[in-house]
Amino acid sequence: MSGHMMRMPLRVIDLLRHAKRNHPRAEIVSRRVEGDIHRYTYADAYDRVCRLARALGRLGIGRDAHVGTLAWNGYRHLELYYASAGLGAVCHTLNPRLLPQQIAWIAAHAGDEILFFDATFVGLVKSIRAQLPRVRHFVLLGASDNAEMADAADDIPGLLFYEDLIAGELGDEFDWASFDENQACGLCYTSGTTGDPKGVVYSNRSTILHAYASALPDSLGLSVRDTALPVVPMFHVNAWGLPYSMPMVGGKLVFPGPALDGKSLYELCESEGVTVAAGVPTIWLGLLDHVRSRALSFSSLRRTVLGGSAASEAMIREFEEVYAVRVIHAWGMTETSPIGAVNQFKPVHDALAPAERYRLQARQGRALFGLEMRIETDEGEAAPHDGEARGRLLVKGPWVVDTYAGSVRAARGDGWFDTGDIATIDADGYMSIVDRSKDVIKSGGEWISSIELENAAMGHPSIQEAAVIGRPHPRWVERPLMLCVLRPGHALTCEQLRDWLRERVARWWLPDAVEFLDELPHGATGKLLKARLRERFAHYQFQDTTQNSEDRS
Amino acid sequence: MSGHMMRMPLRVIDLLRHAKRNHPRAEIVSRRVEGDIHRYTYADAYDRVCRLARALGRLGIGRDAHVGTLAWNGYRHLELYYASAGLGAVCHTLNPRLLPQQIAWIAAHAGDEILFFDATFVGLVKSIRAQLPRVRHFVLLGASDNAEMADAADDIPGLLFYEDLIAGELGDEFDWASFDENQACGLCYTSGTTGDPKGVVYSNRSTILHAYASALPDSLGLSVRDTALPVVPMFHVNAWGLPYSMPMVGGKLVFPGPALDGKSLYELCESEGVTVAAGVPTIWLGLLDHVRSRALSFSSLRRTVLGGSAASEAMIREFEEVYAVRVIHAWGMTETSPIGAVNQFKPVHDALAPAERYRLQARQGRALFGLEMRIETDEGEAAPHDGEARGRLLVKGPWVVDTYAGSVRAARGDGWFDTGDIATIDADGYMSIVDRSKDVIKSGGEWISSIELENAAMGHPSIQEAAVIGRPHPRWVERPLMLCVLRPGHALTCEQLRDWLRERVARWWLPDAVEFLDELPHGATGKLLKARLRERFAHYQFQDTTQNSEDRS
Repeated sequence: MSGHMMRMPLRVIDLLRHAKRNHPRAEIVSRRVEGDIHRYTYADAYDRVCRLARALGRLGIGRDAHVGTLAWNGYRHLELYYASAGLGAVCHTLNPRLLPQQIAWIAAHAGDEILFFDATFVGLVKSIRAQLPRVRHFVLLGASDNAEMADAADDIPGLLFYEDLIAGELGDEFDWASFDENQACGLCYTSGTTGDPKGVVYSNRSTILHAYASALPDSLGLSVRDTALPVVPMFHVNAWGLPYSMPMVGGKLVFPGPALDGKSLYELCESEGVTVAAGVPTIWLGLLDHVRSRALSFSSLRRTVLGGSAASEAMIREFEEVYAVRVIHAWGMTETSPIGAVNQFKPVHDALAPAERYRLQARQGRALFGLEMRIETDEGEAAPHDGEARGRLLVKGPWVVDTYAGSVRAARGDGWFDTGDIATIDADGYMSIVDRSKDVIKSGGEWISSIELENAAMGHPSIQEAAVIGRPHPRWVERPLMLCVLRPGHALTCEQLRDWLRERVARWWLPDAVEFLDELPHGATGKLLKARLRERFAHYQFQDTTQNSEDRS
Repeated sequence: MSGHMMRMPLRVIDLLRHAKRNHPRAEIVSRRVEGDIHRYTYADAYDRVCRLARALGRLGIGRDAHVGTLAWNGYRHLELYYASAGLGAVCHTLNPRLLPQQIAWIAAHAGDEILFFDATFVGLVKSIRAQLPRVRHFVLLGASDNAEMADAADDIPGLLFYEDLIAGELGDEFDWASFDENQACGLCYTSGTTGDPKGVVYSNRSTILHAYASALPDSLGLSVRDTALPVVPMFHVNAWGLPYSMPMVGGKLVFPGPALDGKSLYELCESEGVTVAAGVPTIWLGLLDHVRSRALSFSSLRRTVLGGSAASEAMIREFEEVYAVRVIHAWGMTETSPIGAVNQFKPVHDALAPAERYRLQARQGRALFGLEMRIETDEGEAAPHDGEARGRLLVKGPWVVDTYAGSVRAARGDGWFDTGDIATIDADGYMSIVDRSKDVIKSGGEWISSIELENAAMGHPSIQEAAVIGRPHPRWVERPLMLCVLRPGHALTCEQLRDWLRERVARWWLPDAVEFLDELPHGATGKLLKARLRERFAHYQFQDTTQNSEDRS
């Protein structure tokens, strides 16, 4: 009995081919580095991707070659994603927010052979050029007949111009490479806070499966009726896969370019009819500030997808109650392509009171089909999914890393990937990150969640941001120290904040001390750098007289 | 650079494992052959599937074994789907509406080693038992302590009872087989009107990919908030994949068992809060008749998925205007798992007037991502996607058949599968079946679409069903003959019908003759059997004096 289905590999380039054939008129709109708005269709994009593939071939870029990019979210970056993947090459998105020497290290480690970059980064590229001996071509994402851009040629000998490169090539169609679906198509290094950065390699297969799962109604729910604004950068885990999932469904894509301030994003939402926007909480703070201060409203935006770090209940509440925008909380990592879980309600939650609903919504969500989750105790036992038991969060699935670039093992011997997070999972599958395993505070043998304390503090109207770190304590081993940034023009005392927290967390969780700072340190992707705070407050030693510790019983 | 993602095979059993872990309380409700309503959860289902897998193992059913079923839609049938797939075995759904000798031929051809059947089919099984030497076990889907069922044991020596089999086994968890994702998991024979039936073999991979694609917002849009009623049988292309896609999203499943009449279906919709129902037009005719005649309404039903044969605009209009139920027209075949295209609107269609919208809705829809479509002229050239050009519809994709059971080649040498349909595709990707290639009428060198003529006729309030076949004509080679069934209590003359059609189709398409019949012949899956009509009207010969032919210019 040898009947079987067609054995066709899943290929990234087929997403754009599908969009071109079925949604040729759907638009891709980009705010460019040049300052203007660029607008074209999926049919146009595919045409240019074919040209680009020919140009890359002419430059000797083929299967397995690594194509580096230093670029904002925009149509040219999208073209690089697809032309590379179609050739069997790997689009390696570099994070321009890292330090120049980090970028150079990563590009060299990855073995990038060609580097495409936005005009913004001419100075950066000039400064690291000498450290990139394997890069054979430097290509500016613009045209040589743009006077400003042409100046860059003086800085970088042999500089090529993207528009010039593809102008002479044939578009319309291309005979794409055939290869196994496990062929790599993307590469993104994690901005680890310790050790060397590690490269996560995405395959054609993992990218397609992730796109299917992330577009489902209970995931981001993407359809041809959506206009998506990926604010999350294309250099940061492929903008959460939207450059793949939107062509899959034929929806409109809107790229913000370098303008990530509240005003620019708001204008783009309104002028392009954005229905769904995706980004980290910091971005939404800026957008909400802008909208709130000018008493504006959203005419088309229906949902924001929020990830990268936890959403505060206050933000969820403001989006929903003031602007009628549903916040979809998602969880993932560079190692999970990135989306692993999305927080969408079940019918049983319809009866919840708003406060309960917001509390549920602040959880990280349910696993997509294809990604399996479990939590494990320190002893390596499976912890129950009861919403109470905490454990290390382990994941596996076809879009989870097995091995980092350079053959560095990522998954454990038993096949699971340890996320480094401490989480609970409830009986309905809702996962909640309690802490990073390295940030959790062990006080008297019990865990205190720094994240829950921070969220409770950030619910206070005067607090802009809060961080909690553990500091040594003679009796309890560790106790929490809270570090806060106040909103401009606000005042708050330690005692007022402790009173606020007292109603929201267990008494023995109350921070033993609170310090008010002007700002907290953040990494290149906007993540809070607790390691820096730990260094800065290394002198902090609690005494055994602390009132709060005594409350514990 | 050897970084890569986890290499995990896509497995059908993981759908149910996912549902058990993330949606343990979501329900599966079945109307049983026993007459009552059975109700349990995904957690219960998984438990029983583990028991069943152990029971099958004990009976010697393992990898590659073929497990035959003769069963209605219900929870036990679902359990057989999953336990077989989990073991690397193949669930072979037999169509009980075929003639006994056809069923015997198919079960023998497939090499079924065990046969599970509902009590309904005891007589059938008894009658074909002798023709199934390879079937080692006959298992009745019930318990031996049910008196009515126990009687069956007298008819079939060695009969086993499903509930007895699994009762003694351990549930909870099972160590599922590991195998390549191309491992077969399902088998369904096409009820071809000519030649021997052909077996389409579904794999774990094709089934999972089809489930992802068919659950997308622009496909069936399935979510945890849905309650799905697959009226389309599980023995007919796996009930369009709903037994897989619903566990994927954790939605509630409602199985109608053998009761497919309008009253039973309506009661199930209302009592279980069905939001989406899927079936062939004939089923909806019965449901609409029931609801219309009693002036009822639907309290939870939001959409019906309709396929198998074309939906009439009249039915689409009644569902939408009278009952506020959206009709989602889908297209597929046994060879395409089955869903290939789904008709969901784009934003550009929002401005359409109702009549135009219904006309668009009657088209077969846009290709899902993963399934590629093209149309080809008789000369083998690609026809343009302009909504006008007609051609043979070709498809390919990972859930399209390559080779039928028994190594019978299905796809062409160039990798495309010829559907046997004649279609148009417009610039937005909407495909419209114009005719079966064998039903199209070639009149004076031009094509007349029998389907379009039939749809136009069925839009008449007095017509219940219409069929058009081509009959020889001395001058035009072929001309259309229309065969109609009137609604009970209605009267209509040929001339009245021609007047109606004259406003809806090209003048030269008007049938040269109309015959009113008591009923039209249908096959086992409800499809109109035009071959029978052609036999019955073999005597029909048009004369050259026909007025209509003269109208042609």
